[in-house]
Order: sequence, then structure tokens, then C-alpha cells
Amino acid sequence: MKTVNKIELFDTTLRDGTQGEGVNLSIADKLMITEKLDEFGIDIIEGGWPGSNPKDEEYFQKVKSLKLKNAKICAFGSTARFPDKIESDNNLNKLVEAGTPYVSIFGKTWRFHSRESLGLTDAQNAELIHGSVKYLTGKGINVIFDAEHFFDGYKDNPEFAVNMLKAAENGGASTVVLCDTNGGTLPEEIYNITSEVKKHISKTIGIHCHNDGELGVANSLAAVRAGALHVQGTINGVGERVGNANLCSIIPNLMLKLKLETKSNVNLEHLTSLSHYVYEMMNLVPNSRAAFIGKSAFAHKGGIHVSSVLKNSRMYEHINPQAVGNKQRVIVSDLSGQSNIRYKAKELGIELPDKQEFSKKFVQSIKSLEYEGFQFDGAEASFELLLREELGEKSSFFEIVYSKINVMFNDNGEEYSEAVLKVQVDEKVEHTAADGDGPVNALDRALRKALVTFYPEISKIHLIDYKVRVLGDSDGTAAKVRVLIESSDGEATWSTVGVSENIIRASLQALSDSLNYKLYQWHKLNTARVI
Amino acid sequence: MKTVNKIELFDTTLRDGTQGEGVNLSIADKLMITEKLDEFGIDIIEGGWPGSNPKDEEYFQKVKSLKLKNAKICAFGSTARFPDKIESDNNLNKLVEAGTPYVSIFGKTWRFHSRESLGLTDAQNAELIHGSVKYLTGKGINVIFDAEHFFDGYKDNPEFAVNMLKAAENGGASTVVLCDTNGGTLPEEIYNITSEVKKHISKTIGIHCHNDGELGVANSLAAVRAGALHVQGTINGVGERVGNANLCSIIPNLMLKLKLETKSNVNLEHLTSLSHYVYEMMNLVPNSRAAFIGKSAFAHKGGIHVSSVLKNSRMYEHINPQAVGNKQRVIVSDLSGQSNIRYKAKELGIELPDKQEFSKKFVQSIKSLEYEGFQFDGAEASFELLLREELGEKSSFFEIVYSKINVMFNDNGEEYSEAVLKVQVDEKVEHTAADGDGPVNALDRALRKALVTFYPEISKIHLIDYKVRVLGDSDGTAAKVRVLIESSDGEATWSTVGVSENIIRASLQALSDSLNYKLYQWHKLNTARVI
Repeated sequence: MKTVNKIELFDTTLRDGTQGEGVNLSIADKLMITEKLDEFGIDIIEGGWPGSNPKDEEYFQKVKSLKLKNAKICAFGSTARFPDKIESDNNLNKLVEAGTPYVSIFGKTWRFHSRESLGLTDAQNAELIHGSVKYLTGKGINVIFDAEHFFDGYKDNPEFAVNMLKAAENGGASTVVLCDTNGGTLPEEIYNITSEVKKHISKTIGIHCHNDGELGVANSLAAVRAGALHVQGTINGVGERVGNANLCSIIPNLMLKLKLETKSNVNLEHLTSLSHYVYEMMNLVPNSRAAFIGKSAFAHKGGIHVSSVLKNSRMYEHINPQAVGNKQRVIVSDLSGQSNIRYKAKELGIELPDKQEFSKKFVQSIKSLEYEGFQFDGAEASFELLLREELGEKSSFFEIVYSKINVMFNDNGEEYSEAVLKVQVDEKVEHTAADGDGPVNALDRALRKALVTFYPEISKIHLIDYKVRVLGDSDGTAAKVRVLIESSDGEATWSTVGVSENIIRASLQALSDSLNYKLYQWHKLNTARVI
Repeated sequence: MKTVNKIELFDTTLRDGTQGEGVNLSIADKLMITEKLDEFGIDIIEGGWPGSNPKDEEYFQKVKSLKLKNAKICAFGSTARFPDKIESDNNLNKLVEAGTPYVSIFGKTWRFHSRESLGLTDAQNAELIHGSVKYLTGKGINVIFDAEHFFDGYKDNPEFAVNMLKAAENGGASTVVLCDTNGGTLPEEIYNITSEVKKHISKTIGIHCHNDGELGVANSLAAVRAGALHVQGTINGVGERVGNANLCSIIPNLMLKLKLETKSNVNLEHLTSLSHYVYEMMNLVPNSRAAFIGKSAFAHKGGIHVSSVLKNSRMYEHINPQAVGNKQRVIVSDLSGQSNIRYKAKELGIELPDKQEFSKKFVQSIKSLEYEGFQFDGAEASFELLLREELGEKSSFFEIVYSKINVMFNDNGEEYSEAVLKVQVDEKVEHTAADGDGPVNALDRALRKALVTFYPEISKIHLIDYKVRVLGDSDGTAAKVRVLIESSDGEATWSTVGVSENIIRASLQALSDSLNYKLYQWHKLNTARVI
């Protein structure tokens, strides 16, 4: 570990990240994410743009009451609009009012942009930057200058671009951040230009990349190699268009590959859980194929013998998954044999009897389910239930004695879906009904309605994804369907599967497994407090 | 454009890509993807591993009957198991039997691996590689040598790693491919090591990266900068763990950013459609945030003025989206313009009135349907019906006045699905019912049963594919679903679409469109004899 030149981590999930399509956060969401980012070890959290909307202003008022351990809050805005009206500039004064220890302001460093869009002379643009930074530093605020379109600007006119950085430096900015605003720059360009800038700038150099060329992580690392010490990005790479540079990949690369030290103490083993927390708050389906933190990131499928993976994970894994709070998984697929299942059981913390025979029998039953169309690589919770049942542990907390679904529509556009269910728990039978948006939704609602009388904690569980796949090619509407359901209780997520020619039966199977799985976790394993 | 040193594109979607979690392709799927890759301009298509499973053997037999314009097919396998039994090695002979012009074989180039896992001396390992390559080239096959774990192997022992490449080169391999099998290497390491290798190897150097550090694209480009001319990857970056290097990002970076020429003529403007085709065949939800080809890749949200984007897209877009067949989007919905619709109509042989107004109105209605979740790329028959209806041509041959679906199951395993329908043709109403394997099948059967009394030729139509996709991320079982149906009359095939929160309604919509479409073709256009 190098002991000098520590990296400062700057998170803009709450500001630039919310520019992503489908990303919307309430003030309460933002405050909760702020706390998580602080716990994880982010140095500076950019919370919003107080000059652009009142919601962000409110965030900055409320964030003051959080007891943060380490992170500093930063408000974002632009330089003043007119060089001669800096002190009365509304945007700058909103930044002062936000009362944050850090402020980031962006200014133009692409001459084409400053001339064409704003109609400014070079001197006027420099004065906007210099004056704005100076005004804020004069109020005792640490100013981070975001050089918008810096790389495009540098390629267009290096002297102009660097002069704008100097204007910020002379105004007292603590950090100048080189922004690849369009996200189209290549890593070697980032490296070369950052290296050149370093010759002219003595303050800390920062990097802010976007992922438009699928190079956001590489570009951020290239800047660090060239001397940047402040790195901006977002959790899960959310952001406008393709997204911002992904901190969930940048941070482990910096720490585990480049062996660099970070300014604050990063709890890297909480990375996977931080990523999932942010997905959850944004109501986004986690990307299972994401590097480091994805569910599949350390998953091994057929072609590689499990025994080899276990013997020498170094041969098949670029890092130890535990370092980022993730885990190795062996995908149970039609190629899997006994050793895969034994491995899987161990992974799930389940003791298997030593008898070969038991294992063989179970392998056979898994194989025949797979032949029917079940697939457990995306439905580990269903697999765990089967395993526990095979071991004689009770895994069913309820029985569906009877169900009936009615769907009606007519040519007046009227539509009605209803599910009637009889659900038994021990000796008691609950007979109930619910309607819904379509038959599966009605069924889901009726099942929860019946069960919540026995298990009130079920209200914590909600579905986050529902997938349907038609199996086989040629049976048309009589083909089998496989339903995969992903559920969450706000802390963990788990997946279950159902297969049938009847989509409603397949859905009911996956729904039942989902509820049974979590009831087992709560009641038998005490994995979390039951409300 | 440089005119020498053209890049050879090698696609392994059908081989390494299928190692991805949740990726399963039938032989028919693989053949269809092969044709698309060929049309797009891929040089070499790796189709599978004939030695590992009979399904892949069958693919290689069937692929011979495809008329490919440009691409060469490649079979994948390993070097022989024993240095003294090369000619009788089962795996090698399966490769010969595959009858492909190219074969790729992988061998160990990490000494740790070759010694620990296989217990081979350095000379024995070199002989396995040399002998295996020589045996295949002796049969007139072009051999590509995949150097497994090359970068880890080089860092461990450069001399050993390079000697294994030389063994392949001396055996007659046309290309040696440096594989970052674990996907954990950094771009500058890839660049430096590839540059070193180039000093020792005179044959074409290839690169095969994985994305475990979210650096797969950058690593592939780094190798090309260092002199690699053969690039392996998969469409959409599918593959084991995090996935393979993503050709959908590598190809536009090579062509548009590095201005390199490719060996064959790449239809880059078909990239987005190729990507979506592969997602569709794999039944994977397209990643809307993917670089270049994602739905959000050129989407502009609040904060940027629409007029600015339009005036100077160069300020907000790193490339012209049309170059990769994608498009700029300003609002949330995915909208097709007038010219697209006119183009499509012409393609369908439909004369459109010249009046602008008509077109505008129709564009609006298509826009709102797309906003609701309809998608006409995969459902041209539904689009044609809408267009004909708009033009005042009768497109509805029947009306569904009323429908009711009942589904029941109990704990004795009994199950029953029934559909009751009232269907009207002109003044006559047919009231009928049918049961089936699940509600959609019952509905399908009842609808045909009702209609066959009016249109006996309907008995010729059968469904050949039925696909369900859940739209949106977070509404669980209340989310909208899109149903795509493919039908055939034994001569032609056509596709239709339905969208609703209710899967049964969506299915009924797509079924109705399918029957209406063909009735129109038969009765109005006389495209085929009516029985």
C-alpha cells in the first residue's frame, strides 16, 4: 500500500445519477442513501442542485440533522451567469444557503461551447469561473470546479481549456475535475490529456467520466494512473444516457488491483449490499451480470468441474468474492452432478448426510425437474426448499387446498379478474377472494390476503420481478411456461420458479415457494427479526 | 481509414456466450443467429463445442446448408489430452468431423495450471499444443489457438507463456489468441504484455477478454492498440460470470473512434437491430443502458434543452446515433417518425396517401401504442392491420363480444381450464366453449372453434411460437405483459402482438390479430388459395 496520494471518492448518485431514465428519488430516499454512502466510506456526497429545484433545497436543509461519521456533503451548481453580477447571482447564493462544507460548480472549458452557446470572449469566460470560485471560497466553502466537456475542449483548444482550469485554481478551488461529459473519450486520450494537465495545475485533479463508449471505468482508472486523486462516479453507474462511471467497479479496481489507498476507510466488503440497497431504493432490477457485485459475477456453469473451482479458485476468479461482499456460486444446471449439489448445499449452510444414496436420489429428482423445464440457476430459493424437504425439514408453511380464477371481458371494454382461494395452515382453513389487474395479480393478492392472517410479517414481502418464458418451440399456447419470481423484504432478495402448461399454476407455484422460503428463513433460521 | 492491418471480428456468442447464466439456445435459435451475424458482417462465427455435447454436433451438420454471404464457421475444442495419443484423440476428431473451415482449440499457457491441474512438464504441454495444432492444420483446417489464462500465465512466467504460443505457431496456427480467461487484467497490463508478445510472434495475434473488472471493452481495445488484429467477443457481452467482452461496444469503438477498417464489410447501422434480435432469441430483457445500442444510450432527460440538443448534438452525443442504427430520444417514450412508417408501408406494398395530415395522425397513434408497451419490430402483421384499418380497409373479420375464462385447481392435483366465448361475424353470433392446457390454450381453442364455422380455412392456421415478456421493472404481477405470437399456414409465417396487464387479454389480442391478418390476406388480397 502506498501511504501518500490517497484517493478521494466523490459520489454523485444523488445528483448526476438521478438524470438516469427511470430514476426518481424522494427526499427520504436521498437521506437514507446518504447514510449508507457515509457508512460505506465515501468522502464527499454530492446531494443535488439547490438552484434547480426546491426538492434539492429541502434535502440540504434536512441532511444537516444526519449524524454522518465521515462523509462531507456537497451542493452542485453552475458558475454565475454574468461576469459583472457574480455576487448577486441567484444560483451561487442558493449554493451558499445550502450551507454545505463543499460546493461543486461547473463551467465551460470547451471554447466552441463558451463562444457558440454563451457568446462569451475567452476573458469573460475565465472571469466567470474565477469570480464564481472566489466568491464561494470567500465564504469559507471548499470549492470543487467541474470542467464541463473538458476532454472535447482540450482536443479543440488545449490552451483555452487549461486556462479555464487555471482561472478556477486562482480563484481558490481545492480541486479541478476533468469531465468527459459526453462519455466518448478513449482511455489513452484521458491518460495523455490528464498527464498534460498535471504539468500546469498544482491543485488536486479530479476525474468525472460517463460510460457512453462502455469505457467509463477504464477512463477513470486511466486518469488516476496519470495523477488524478479525486474520482467521481455513481453507485451501479446510474446516470443520464448510458450512465456515469460506475463506482461499484472503480473502487474495487482501485483498492484490489491498483492497491491504492483511499482517503477514508472504505468498507469494501459492504459493496455488494450497498449496490443492492441503491437498486432497491431506485426500484431498479439489479443487474445480475454487473462486475464485482452482480449475482452472476462469481457464478460457475458447466464445462468447468466444480472440484477444480474449489481446489483453485484463483484459476477461475479474478478476486476473492468475499472482498466485495459477494460470493461464489455454482449454477445448478442440467450439467450438474452430485458434487455440484453437495457444493450448493454447503453454500446454503445445509448439512447433507454422507450417504451417497441420498445424494443420488436427490440428483435424480433434480434432473427430472430440469427435464420438465425447471431451471434453478435463477431460482435458488426454490432449490433450497426442495433440499430442505428432502432432508425432512418442514418447508411448507401453508397448503393451497383449492383455487379458482375467473377472468371476464366484453366488447364494452369491461374487464374483471378474480381469484378464489382456500388456504390451510395446520387445522385452520382460510377461504378468501381478491380481484386484480389480470389473473396472476388477483391470485397474488388473494394468497397474501389469506396468509397475512396467519403470518402478519408477510406484508413485508413484495415482488420485484416477474418473468415468463415459454418453453419449447412448437406447441403454441399449449406449450409449457416457466415463471421466475424475484421477491424482496427490503433487506434480502430471493428467486423462485414454477413450471406448468398453465401460466396461472406456474405463477402460483413460484409465489408459494417465495412465501414459504422467507417464512422458513424467519421462523426456523431466525435470519431477521419478525415484525 | 488505414488500408492495411484490417481487424478480423470473431463472434463467440453461440459458444462462450451460452455459458452465461440463464442463456439457453436451441439448434434452430443458433442457426438463425448465425444468419444474422453473417448478414451483419462478422468474419468468423464460433458455433459450439462438438466434443462436449451432441446438440453442438448437430448444429455443425445443419449449418452447412445455410447460404452464408461472408462469415466462416468455426468449431471449438481443446488440445489433445495425451501428447502420445494425438491422432486418436476423440475431441480433436470431433473437430475434424464438424467439417468447418476454421477450428479454435484452447491450451494451457499458465505454468501453474499446466503443472498443478494436468501434471505436465513444460515440454509435454508444448507438445500437446504443437501436435494438436499440427494434426488439424494437416487436415487443411485453419487453426486458431486460444491461449487460456494467457495474461495470468505471462505474469507468472513470461518465458513459458510465450513458448506455448510459439508451439502453436510452429504447429501452423494462423492466429494465436491471448485470453484473459478470468477477466481481471487491467488495460495497461494487456497493452504491455501484448506489445511484448508481438516481438516474439509473427502470426496474427488475437484477443479474448472477459468483463469481470468492467474493463472488457477497454482491454480489447488496448490489445488492438498493441497490435492485435483478431478480436473475440459476444453480442451484448453475454457469457459466463459477468460476461465476455461486448462486441456491440468494441465494434463501434474500433470503427468510429479508432477509425480502423474491418476485414469484411460491417453493416454498423444494423448493430442495434442485431443486438435486439439476440436478446429476443435468448429471451433476455435488453439492457436499456447499454452503450451504443441501448434504448437510453442517446436519451436526453431534463436539464438539457431540447433545442440545444437538436442544434448541436455534437455537444451532447459522442457519436451520431444513426451510425449504429440507434436514435436520439428526447422524451421518455420510444417513438417512430413519419418517414419510418412511410418506409414500412412501402415495404409492405401499401400505397399511402400523400397528405401530411393523415400520416401525422397515424404516427401519433403508433406513438401512443408504443408508449403503452407495444412493439412492432417483432409483429409486422399487427402493424399492417393497424395501417389497413387507418386506410379504411376493413381488417376485422369477427368481433369478440364476450369472453370468460375459468381456471381451477385443488390439492388432489385436479386442474381445469375453460374458455367461454361469444364471437360475432356480420349478424350471426356463435356462443361456444372449450377447455385446454391452461387458460390461454383454452381461449385459443374456443376462438378457433367459434370461427371455423364461418371460415373453415382457419383450420390451416397453427401457432408456431408464443412468447411472453413482462414489461417494466417494479410492479410485480400487476406489470404489463407483451405477448408475441408467430403463426403459420404451412406456407407463410407472420407475427402479432398484444399488450395488457392481463396476460389473457394480451394473448387474445395477439390471437385475434393473427387470424384477422391471414383472413385479410386470403379474402382481400387473394395471396393464396382458400381451401
